[in-house]
Amino acid sequence: MRDLRPLALTMGEPAGIGGEIALKAWLERETHHIPPFYLIDDPDHLNALKGRLGWPVSLKPIETPEEAPEIFKSALPVLVHPLPRQPVPGSPQQENAGSVIAAIDLAVDHVRSGAAEAIVTNPIHKKVLVDAGFRHVGHTDYLAELAGDDTRAIMMLACPDLRVVPVCVHMSLRESIAALTAEKIIETTQATARALKSDFGIEQPHIALTGLNPHAGEEGAMGHEEIEIIRPSIERMKREGLSVRGPEPADTLFHERARTGYDAAVCMYHDQALIPIKTLDFHGTVNITLGLPFVRTSPDHGTAFEIAGTGVANADSLVEALKPASAMASRRRGDRLH
Amino acid sequence: MRDLRPLALTMGEPAGIGGEIALKAWLERETHHIPPFYLIDDPDHLNALKGRLGWPVSLKPIETPEEAPEIFKSALPVLVHPLPRQPVPGSPQQENAGSVIAAIDLAVDHVRSGAAEAIVTNPIHKKVLVDAGFRHVGHTDYLAELAGDDTRAIMMLACPDLRVVPVCVHMSLRESIAALTAEKIIETTQATARALKSDFGIEQPHIALTGLNPHAGEEGAMGHEEIEIIRPSIERMKREGLSVRGPEPADTLFHERARTGYDAAVCMYHDQALIPIKTLDFHGTVNITLGLPFVRTSPDHGTAFEIAGTGVANADSLVEALKPASAMASRRRGDRLH
Repeated sequence: MRDLRPLALTMGEPAGIGGEIALKAWLERETHHIPPFYLIDDPDHLNALKGRLGWPVSLKPIETPEEAPEIFKSALPVLVHPLPRQPVPGSPQQENAGSVIAAIDLAVDHVRSGAAEAIVTNPIHKKVLVDAGFRHVGHTDYLAELAGDDTRAIMMLACPDLRVVPVCVHMSLRESIAALTAEKIIETTQATARALKSDFGIEQPHIALTGLNPHAGEEGAMGHEEIEIIRPSIERMKREGLSVRGPEPADTLFHERARTGYDAAVCMYHDQALIPIKTLDFHGTVNITLGLPFVRTSPDHGTAFEIAGTGVANADSLVEALKPASAMASRRRGDRLH
Repeated sequence: MRDLRPLALTMGEPAGIGGEIALKAWLERETHHIPPFYLIDDPDHLNALKGRLGWPVSLKPIETPEEAPEIFKSALPVLVHPLPRQPVPGSPQQENAGSVIAAIDLAVDHVRSGAAEAIVTNPIHKKVLVDAGFRHVGHTDYLAELAGDDTRAIMMLACPDLRVVPVCVHMSLRESIAALTAEKIIETTQATARALKSDFGIEQPHIALTGLNPHAGEEGAMGHEEIEIIRPSIERMKREGLSVRGPEPADTLFHERARTGYDAAVCMYHDQALIPIKTLDFHGTVNITLGLPFVRTSPDHGTAFEIAGTGVANADSLVEALKPASAMASRRRGDRLH
């Protein structure tokens, strides 16, 4: 039964909140209809954490993903992945960096071999990995490299009411303006349209694009990027048959009624996309990587060292990341769910 | 009884929705506890509009603001201000431009003489005024000029859950980055703090400032304006005794819990301020001009020519602009309301 393939959840930075939100998510598996997942982590670390928090979680070490679905009902399956040092909440240790990365590699192996349905990643702490020799801009770029040479990974953020995709992401605002090209806008929008069809089951996706400037430039009165770059990109995509519109003033595109007019908004830069979605649904917003040969989602927050180990961390974003991942992977395979 | 001074509401562009939202607001005066106001407009125009819409509004022409409060309970007081041509909904006429501007001048005269409590302005259409010789960037700048030479007007947007003030406003994003200076940030924040005290009755206002770049620059990894401009401005204001914090990443500053941590957010550019507030409360967001020697509010939308004359226009923003204006003016005078 292919639909019973589990999700692979990576440990993330073990000194962060990844472990405790995974335990919380497992506890909420029935309330939230979370599909079966296994956590790639060190059982000793999780047992210590569970003991400290006093939570009623059963842990069950496993050797292969295939064991997970059956176990998941009564215990959290933990794919055994030992850490060189036991983690200290809030204090990442460089000695564990190799295992953090290896857990990601393992998840990718599992999803590529068909043993796992999709990947959900817990937050990593980039600095400690970089100090240990990691040479990637972040999680997403690393996954793109593992996936293969011509993969361009694109970040979508999604909550129940909104999906946004920034064209320029992790660079300064000044660099974002300089980096904005028709090619980049079109590539991002096309990847968004493909994902809306294949992973979200939307046959005729409608995409709205923002302008870069206030009031979308007001016909050139406040900036020319709309006239010179964005509008021509939209016209070209329309000719190619995509259902796209814009450039829309970004401030009037995200209120309740406006959100009913499109399936995703392609935004020109980081804050233009992230401000509206995190304002609307801070805890429930999920990061979905488009353009990979497998489905990958992740909670949209960091390692939260300041509260790690205390049990107060909010697991909503991880729950929201786990919930759709199986259905997305299944849709992509063509086995439409009902 | 000084508290009974009425609000002066300007006609705005008479081919737009100003007339009908004023009629709607008067109809909702009791439900929404709207303080007495009079509309500076042509009674013939309003009578025609009222007849076309079939709304149960009584209109009462007046010659001076003093007549308004008593009349307001049973009729909408209309300060007689004839138009050269009867307006055609959706089609602004240049012949009326002089009267549109004169209505603003008249409202300023009334508030400066003490006959009106504060000014609420209906939306104007800049192009038709410019074609008729108007030489100002907009409403707010015109009011600043009428107010006197050294007035620098600052735009605040407010809804029940959030107040935002952009440092750079109506210029391209590229120009906003170039125009960002410590002087401008400090001037905007100080004006915001003063207004929160004098007009909103907040004795110890707390103000959060955003960064310019994603993640507020992440310690220089994505832009240097935070390190070079914003943080030093904040440090200087702290030394001067203002309760300010930041630079905060803009995407995590506007969710429900985050909004409880400050009285106003000073944002670096237009969309950073307007995206969150219009996402949260599109119809109820009000524009408040800080820094003028009188209180002025306005609905935060345009003339909406495409629906003018049909009666479907939403009056929420005008209602929200009228509601606080009297209390703000009263607080500024020192007559604290209870």
